[in-house]
Amino acid sequence: MDVQALVERVHGELKTRTDEGKVADYIPELAKVDKAKLGLAIQMLDGASFAAGDADEPFSAQSVSKVFTLTLALGRAGEALWSRVGREPSGSPFNSIVQLEQERGVPRNPFINAGAIVVADVILSGHQPREAIGDILRFVRFVADDDTIAIDPLVARSETETGFRNIALANYMRAFGNIHHPVEKVLGVYFHHCALAMSCRQLARAGLYLAGGGRNPLTGSAVISTERARRINALMLTCGHYDASGDFAFRVGLPGKSGVGGGILAIVPGRAAIAVWSPGLNARGNSLVGSLALEMIARETGWSIFSP
Amino acid sequence: MDVQALVERVHGELKTRTDEGKVADYIPELAKVDKAKLGLAIQMLDGASFAAGDADEPFSAQSVSKVFTLTLALGRAGEALWSRVGREPSGSPFNSIVQLEQERGVPRNPFINAGAIVVADVILSGHQPREAIGDILRFVRFVADDDTIAIDPLVARSETETGFRNIALANYMRAFGNIHHPVEKVLGVYFHHCALAMSCRQLARAGLYLAGGGRNPLTGSAVISTERARRINALMLTCGHYDASGDFAFRVGLPGKSGVGGGILAIVPGRAAIAVWSPGLNARGNSLVGSLALEMIARETGWSIFSP
Amino acid sequence: MDVQALVERVHGELKTRTDEGKVADYIPELAKVDKAKLGLAIQMLDGASFAAGDADEPFSAQSVSKVFTLTLALGRAGEALWSRVGREPSGSPFNSIVQLEQERGVPRNPFINAGAIVVADVILSGHQPREAIGDILRFVRFVADDDTIAIDPLVARSETETGFRNIALANYMRAFGNIHHPVEKVLGVYFHHCALAMSCRQLARAGLYLAGGGRNPLTGSAVISTERARRINALMLTCGHYDASGDFAFRVGLPGKSGVGGGILAIVPGRAAIAVWSPGLNARGNSLVGSLALEMIARETGWSIFSP
Amino acid sequence: MDVQALVERVHGELKTRTDEGKVADYIPELAKVDKAKLGLAIQMLDGASFAAGDADEPFSAQSVSKVFTLTLALGRAGEALWSRVGREPSGSPFNSIVQLEQERGVPRNPFINAGAIVVADVILSGHQPREAIGDILRFVRFVADDDTIAIDPLVARSETETGFRNIALANYMRAFGNIHHPVEKVLGVYFHHCALAMSCRQLARAGLYLAGGGRNPLTGSAVISTERARRINALMLTCGHYDASGDFAFRVGLPGKSGVGGGILAIVPGRAAIAVWSPGLNARGNSLVGSLALEMIARETGWSIFSP
Repeated sequence: MDVQALVERVHGELKTRTDEGKVADYIPELAKVDKAKLGLAIQMLDGASFAAGDADEPFSAQSVSKVFTLTLALGRAGEALWSRVGREPSGSPFNSIVQLEQERGVPRNPFINAGAIVVADVILSGHQPREAIGDILRFVRFVADDDTIAIDPLVARSETETGFRNIALANYMRAFGNIHHPVEKVLGVYFHHCALAMSCRQLARAGLYLAGGGRNPLTGSAVISTERARRINALMLTCGHYDASGDFAFRVGLPGKSGVGGGILAIVPGRAAIAVWSPGLNARGNSLVGSLALEMIARETGWSIFSP
Repeated sequence: MDVQALVERVHGELKTRTDEGKVADYIPELAKVDKAKLGLAIQMLDGASFAAGDADEPFSAQSVSKVFTLTLALGRAGEALWSRVGREPSGSPFNSIVQLEQERGVPRNPFINAGAIVVADVILSGHQPREAIGDILRFVRFVADDDTIAIDPLVARSETETGFRNIALANYMRAFGNIHHPVEKVLGVYFHHCALAMSCRQLARAGLYLAGGGRNPLTGSAVISTERARRINALMLTCGHYDASGDFAFRVGLPGKSGVGGGILAIVPGRAAIAVWSPGLNARGNSLVGSLALEMIARETGWSIFSP
Repeated sequence: MDVQALVERVHGELKTRTDEGKVADYIPELAKVDKAKLGLAIQMLDGASFAAGDADEPFSAQSVSKVFTLTLALGRAGEALWSRVGREPSGSPFNSIVQLEQERGVPRNPFINAGAIVVADVILSGHQPREAIGDILRFVRFVADDDTIAIDPLVARSETETGFRNIALANYMRAFGNIHHPVEKVLGVYFHHCALAMSCRQLARAGLYLAGGGRNPLTGSAVISTERARRINALMLTCGHYDASGDFAFRVGLPGKSGVGGGILAIVPGRAAIAVWSPGLNARGNSLVGSLALEMIARETGWSIFSP
Repeated sequence: MDVQALVERVHGELKTRTDEGKVADYIPELAKVDKAKLGLAIQMLDGASFAAGDADEPFSAQSVSKVFTLTLALGRAGEALWSRVGREPSGSPFNSIVQLEQERGVPRNPFINAGAIVVADVILSGHQPREAIGDILRFVRFVADDDTIAIDPLVARSETETGFRNIALANYMRAFGNIHHPVEKVLGVYFHHCALAMSCRQLARAGLYLAGGGRNPLTGSAVISTERARRINALMLTCGHYDASGDFAFRVGLPGKSGVGGGILAIVPGRAAIAVWSPGLNARGNSLVGSLALEMIARETGWSIFSP
């Protein structure tokens, strides 16, 4: 199969549909992004890589970064993390506060905002935000094997100024004792890692350890155990697209994590990591054209964790 | 790998824990089941099969049967089915009515009770309950290649007499126009297919088409398309264990469907179908020892859709 | 104050607005009612009575009848009734099922549908529906001192045929053990008392015992104790208009109970009972013009339980 | 009737039960209060006053102060206030955030925390917190005709340090645009007015204008219109005790507002204002002995807005 031809075909077919969907506008800095962008990158475990469109242009990772902070926090807290955050799909939008009240401050999973804020609190433990942010950035550069990856300070500040809902979530969990550090510090970490700027190519490389059973064969690094990689993939499958996770599993059939910046990272265990980017979002806050691109790639390649 | 030795070892280790958990008691006939039972069966796509314990004793399939009725209903209604039932994890217990109110009578997915009742309504379409039940039974016998499979009339009647919550769910959806036939008829079909009695060995064989890309290689029958098999597997993964689906994906890593009779069917795409049975349930209504058995099998074999 | 002139003025002013609002259409028989109707009746404790418009035309009491069944059920079960139904505003629409799940089958109050169905179950206790319906009818005729009051069999049947939501509520509570009789029998009683046909004049007279501290001075009958009358009035105030009860208290300031037939009964303790009827409903399912009429009457007369 | 003898009798009977209930402990400064305290004061419109127990000892008004801030905010914003806060019972605990999500940042009523925070935002409008707090203090001193009333700075600070849930509520509403000032400023006002320290005697006098149709006959001041007083009383009746408002109306039958400091203000329109204080709270967060005291007073005097 000619994968390069495939990504080019997908890019060509979907390029015309980038005007559908709606750019996230609640973060002012994100609202400025050019909706016509479309990038695709596939990084194979065997070293081959394929890309099309705006695959080398950095975009705001936003919630896609939660995959990396979860990996880091599990390294710090181990399985004890699961006493502070659940592993179930929430059945609710990404920023819902309802379940937090019913479940007394314990978020459903680490990929909804509340859960990722708990993860940030774990990473922060005992340190200053600046150090924790440094740790996250170093980890992402390490897994992507690319020291040029950076955090966009304008986006970080843009979120800080308008993130009332996240401030509410964090204070709410603090009221239940499930946030241990001052809320401003925890959100400082959270807003900064959401502001990671990465290109499709960088993102696909950064996710490769999840396709490789915890190991990045390109660098030879054993990032995490095979079991942990397997479990993070499971969480991405069941919880990676908020209340559209079931639909993504149904249509694409791969573990994936989306962000409101329009990026999606998808994992093909034993084969590849795929990153797509298109800023227009669908009604559930996931990249509209990005989802379609992954659906096409999965169908054409037959890469699905649910197929023989 | 010696799979037969494995299933025997799993059986040996877990046999002593069958007293944990709690037999479903809201269906009087199920409450009579011997809690000490433990059966395991693995049916490989290559024809090999392995079993241990009470693998040949029929038990009440209950919600596991929803996998087969969904397959049948998709054959009847095609993708139009999805206008009447969703594809998202519910985040709520199997018999919750809350989301039905918020989402105006459209159940979250076909595996919670409300969704399976809609599926029964689709199978019923235009026929009498007796015919619809006959269709379901014929279909299950066909996929399992076993004409001795039957419906337990005592269990069916036992559910009919006590199923007030299901009567409530069906009437509630009827109020929104999402049940088209008289509620008694629809529930007649639903209660009867839940009362299917199957052994682990029969169940594993019946599920083999989902491991085989829609095709049962033992009989040579093409049951459904590869794409449909893939999608049913995706639904089992995200929704097959009610509000513990995320945890099952995390711990076992295979598409699975559980029933309150204590059975679980799990699919290893491209390899095998596995059936386990142990009547004691955990707090979320899934077989306690059955879940542990699948976790052990998945770990020892490395069979996980999330691993390389 | 010339109360007769007032009711005529209110009738004259509001007659032109009866085309606003929407007649309840989920009960086919109710949908046939002439929206232009407007009746008002005030029955004073001193025997004087005032009326205007269609005050002598019987309409379907619907939920207004719940005031009388509650009175009857309290006579049967006494304060023990409150272990099966709460006394709090529900904050939800009249037919909501959500709280029933969270509160395990115990309805918030006796005026939402679920609560009134429990009340019907209490009245039924040990009898046949026909007898229970007879008891209710006798009680209403007794308090209204009018043996011509009847139940409209067409309306009762109309509800029976379409009342899926009520069937759902009743079965749901039965699943929790809070309905003791077969659901069909309980709903038989419920649908029939909702089908009571009464004119404004009859309804105002029937409610007089609640204004008179439990005693109807016109007939000299001591219907209930002063304390019980006071408490039923309190329930009407906090729960009588579903999720618009607060607004009714704010605007009218009198205990009141509305029905989807367009009737409202309001109580002026120590002074009078008022009945209004206009079939067009507002967004919350209460008579639009009827509410306005009561607001005008309360403002002009100064009759408010919240004023000196 | 000898009202002084009555309050003494009530005090004597209930004094022994002050060990029941639980002092609010989430505000550290409140947790230090002596649970054995019990104060009662009745201020008649005719000038007579009656008191027993610790009626002259100041306690933390907490949510009782919301009656006064609502009065003040209505004076500022008029009926336009109701576009930012509802008038319905919430059916939920005082600090619930669930309905805020469903109802897009508009609190159910001005007496739950979220609603009172909106009220504080209205009072703040354009000013500094210090000025707004000064306005509130002046208003309370004016209606109580007592310049010694003060705000307890330790309590105010104690709330500020631990009020994570209120910070969450305020930020959540700000996310929906229903808080116009910086959250810290709004909560500064809110925490300070909750820290008002008043004795039962002061509180009863301060509430007298609500019994007097908006006018305090002792001072001759016309505080608000009769209609506004009537409406505030209605809100106290339906919403003054959070999700136990229905029960309070049922048992006591008077408009009332409780606070977690253990105080309750009750209004007898046309007759008197009553204040009780006992720090032990019941399961719903209202003064346990205070509620019982009001129930006894209402029963013995026959003062109920629901009686003739």
